[in-house]
Amino acid sequence: MAESAAGPVDLVILGGGSGGYAAALRAAELGLSVVLVEKDKLGGTCLHRGCIPTKALLHSAEIVDNIHESATFGILSTLNGIDMAKVNEYKDSVVGGLFKGLTGLVKSRGIEVVAGTGKLTSPTTVTVDGRVIEGRNIILATGSYSRTLPGLELDHEKIITSEDALTLDRVPSSVVVLGGGVIGCEFASVWRSYGADVTIIEALPHLAPLEDESSSKLLERGFRKRGIKFKLKTRFAGVKTTDHGVTVSLEDGSTVDAELLLVAVGRGPVTDGIGYDEVGVAMERGFVLVDRSLRTNIPNVFAIGDIRPGLQLAHVGFAEGIFVAEQIAGLNPTPVDYDNVPKVTYSSPEVASVGLTEVVAKERFGADAVTKVTYNLAGNGKSQILKTAGAVTVIAVKDGPVVGVHMVGDRVGELIAEAQLITNWEAYPSDVAQLIHPHPTMSEALGEAHLALAGKPLHTHD
Amino acid sequence: MAESAAGPVDLVILGGGSGGYAAALRAAELGLSVVLVEKDKLGGTCLHRGCIPTKALLHSAEIVDNIHESATFGILSTLNGIDMAKVNEYKDSVVGGLFKGLTGLVKSRGIEVVAGTGKLTSPTTVTVDGRVIEGRNIILATGSYSRTLPGLELDHEKIITSEDALTLDRVPSSVVVLGGGVIGCEFASVWRSYGADVTIIEALPHLAPLEDESSSKLLERGFRKRGIKFKLKTRFAGVKTTDHGVTVSLEDGSTVDAELLLVAVGRGPVTDGIGYDEVGVAMERGFVLVDRSLRTNIPNVFAIGDIRPGLQLAHVGFAEGIFVAEQIAGLNPTPVDYDNVPKVTYSSPEVASVGLTEVVAKERFGADAVTKVTYNLAGNGKSQILKTAGAVTVIAVKDGPVVGVHMVGDRVGELIAEAQLITNWEAYPSDVAQLIHPHPTMSEALGEAHLALAGKPLHTHD
Repeated sequence: MAESAAGPVDLVILGGGSGGYAAALRAAELGLSVVLVEKDKLGGTCLHRGCIPTKALLHSAEIVDNIHESATFGILSTLNGIDMAKVNEYKDSVVGGLFKGLTGLVKSRGIEVVAGTGKLTSPTTVTVDGRVIEGRNIILATGSYSRTLPGLELDHEKIITSEDALTLDRVPSSVVVLGGGVIGCEFASVWRSYGADVTIIEALPHLAPLEDESSSKLLERGFRKRGIKFKLKTRFAGVKTTDHGVTVSLEDGSTVDAELLLVAVGRGPVTDGIGYDEVGVAMERGFVLVDRSLRTNIPNVFAIGDIRPGLQLAHVGFAEGIFVAEQIAGLNPTPVDYDNVPKVTYSSPEVASVGLTEVVAKERFGADAVTKVTYNLAGNGKSQILKTAGAVTVIAVKDGPVVGVHMVGDRVGELIAEAQLITNWEAYPSDVAQLIHPHPTMSEALGEAHLALAGKPLHTHD
Repeated sequence: MAESAAGPVDLVILGGGSGGYAAALRAAELGLSVVLVEKDKLGGTCLHRGCIPTKALLHSAEIVDNIHESATFGILSTLNGIDMAKVNEYKDSVVGGLFKGLTGLVKSRGIEVVAGTGKLTSPTTVTVDGRVIEGRNIILATGSYSRTLPGLELDHEKIITSEDALTLDRVPSSVVVLGGGVIGCEFASVWRSYGADVTIIEALPHLAPLEDESSSKLLERGFRKRGIKFKLKTRFAGVKTTDHGVTVSLEDGSTVDAELLLVAVGRGPVTDGIGYDEVGVAMERGFVLVDRSLRTNIPNVFAIGDIRPGLQLAHVGFAEGIFVAEQIAGLNPTPVDYDNVPKVTYSSPEVASVGLTEVVAKERFGADAVTKVTYNLAGNGKSQILKTAGAVTVIAVKDGPVVGVHMVGDRVGELIAEAQLITNWEAYPSDVAQLIHPHPTMSEALGEAHLALAGKPLHTHD
């Protein structure tokens, strides 16, 4: 791409994470000249410090659980140890393989990748180590970082973030997890499987507080059964490091001692000190403000992914990247329907959902206009084979479409893909009920819930 | 249901397997009086001798694989043994739990269950141990049995069926599996995980011969990697039992010695000696002939499930049972679309499909009118985390709907539920491509294949 050095390119992207590289790939596919600026590694948080490595840890944790529980299935085994160096090697090899694939893909589409910290220096330029790159359009996709609380200082040894947790060379004997959201629940799940004593502190009334309350309660039941402790409606007051770890004090006056404190209180946007303010990009509490087409207040500057207010999910970043690239290329793409984006917490049990919670559905359509069915996995053959507990809840408008699906149970993250077709396509329960789910699968639970909503329950007690 | 003894009931069902009990439950729900005749246990083959117990064995086999491969994931463990008594206890407890649930469900809907071998004695009567039960409608749902080949005599000790295999009290050191269909592949997979030396003999050119050839080839690659041997295009010639097992001779002149021979050459309809012939029900090669509404040549007699020509699957039985019950109740249900019924082989790797194979799609729409994309699981993050190989192939009519989806890889059986919505709803690739699959899940592979078919590949090398 020699021309990109000469004059302005069609598109300069600041940040090569999920949103940025998806935008680059799609734009290049559509014939645009693209420069992608990345200060670290292509793939960003998701690939290197988020989705992928955490799911690798979760799978190794599943293996540990399988060994612990093998006798239940008639298989006799002994757990000899968790070799964290080897776990990390496995995790890093998965990340490395995907990184290699991504790098090759970006190269094969003729995208110029510029390594270095980019700064927005005008509405049409990004500057990287003194080199000024001019673009007719710019996408800001600088991602997010692990937040902490005011007065809570991370030392990255005893008081750590999820990034630190991913490079830990040992299994901690005990951990306090501050924050019961996705990241907190996933690490709590991993460490508990590894044998640690785990306590989650959550200020809100439930774990996974963004999920339907029914899902939160089932997750809490699952965690309780696994011996994961949690304190809800409890605020953090302070932490002291000790010789052996930390003493965490809570606003209820109690303290919890542990080897580590994981701070998992959310992720803040990376928007500071990289020119956004100076160039006049409108922001609020550090987030870049965008309209429905993800355009900032500067018409040729867009913002995608974790830096704009809203859902911080890699798959949303992908979709936004594609959406903005298509707009820039002159197509007329459909904006992302944020209500119908699937969300998964990959703990054991998993939590997956798409669409509206019951509370929101009732607010939107009126309490009397909403109906729901909960199908308990106790009635589902495959779930009984896997010995997982949980449920599938489907929320519909009466005589209308399905507007929300909420699931808890091992492996339900794969089932929400079907559910997102249902809510996005505004299917009626009867549209799904007449179709056939394979037996015996967990997906039948979704089918049964729709059969029941359609007034023809099969394997359901009335 | 005292009245059922007095006069004719609305519906008598002969056979309490998947089809029969689904019909009973739906008919009762719709207010019909129902008598369900079962000679053994409610739930039939699927629950007691098929789907459920085999999947329990497969899960215990997955546990064994996890232990064997745990070091790959950094987890150190030792396999101490496979306690078949305990494996069977686990399997039987899953079956027992579901059986209890089903029995309770049938009872709660007021269905009269008559225990005993029923015989069709007229177009409106079934006789059980001398008791004549009169019904305005009759559903034949007597299911199937494990077939053998002419001249191949089962001794149920060394030459066994899948029913025998489910009660085996030991892990065989070696097995010849005659037949590379679903049942053969599933048992081959289980026994190989348990450590047996396994050889599959298949007369057709591929394992899983009803699947798209691309899936068969991927399954064969997976089995080869696992050390499962197979001989394709090879016919069985004879078998001799020896002191230590069997010597199986093949038409190519070779022989294979093993401890056991599993005969898995398909399932024949149970239609003999129970009055069908005498009452004049039209049959062909033992199967009961039906029209599109599953009616036999006798207007008030229907046949569902494994006894009519076509797919022998529990979930088809459920759907047919519901369909016939609704007809009898005077509703106007949509017939089952057999092309779009999902099929799963639960081996490791799994094979799942819905819709047309490439060959059939080309026959139906013309070779030039069909397009396809194969997405290799090597590009899918979650598959890399699970270390499973395979692919998702999506077949579409050019500028038209998706007509077939074929998948190979561990756990893909759960993904075909989404695919069946796509083919049943005749979605276009672009309808799916614009929607968001959660990251990182295996379901993304299906999303990526649709993105590519819609002309906007994301994580795909061109």
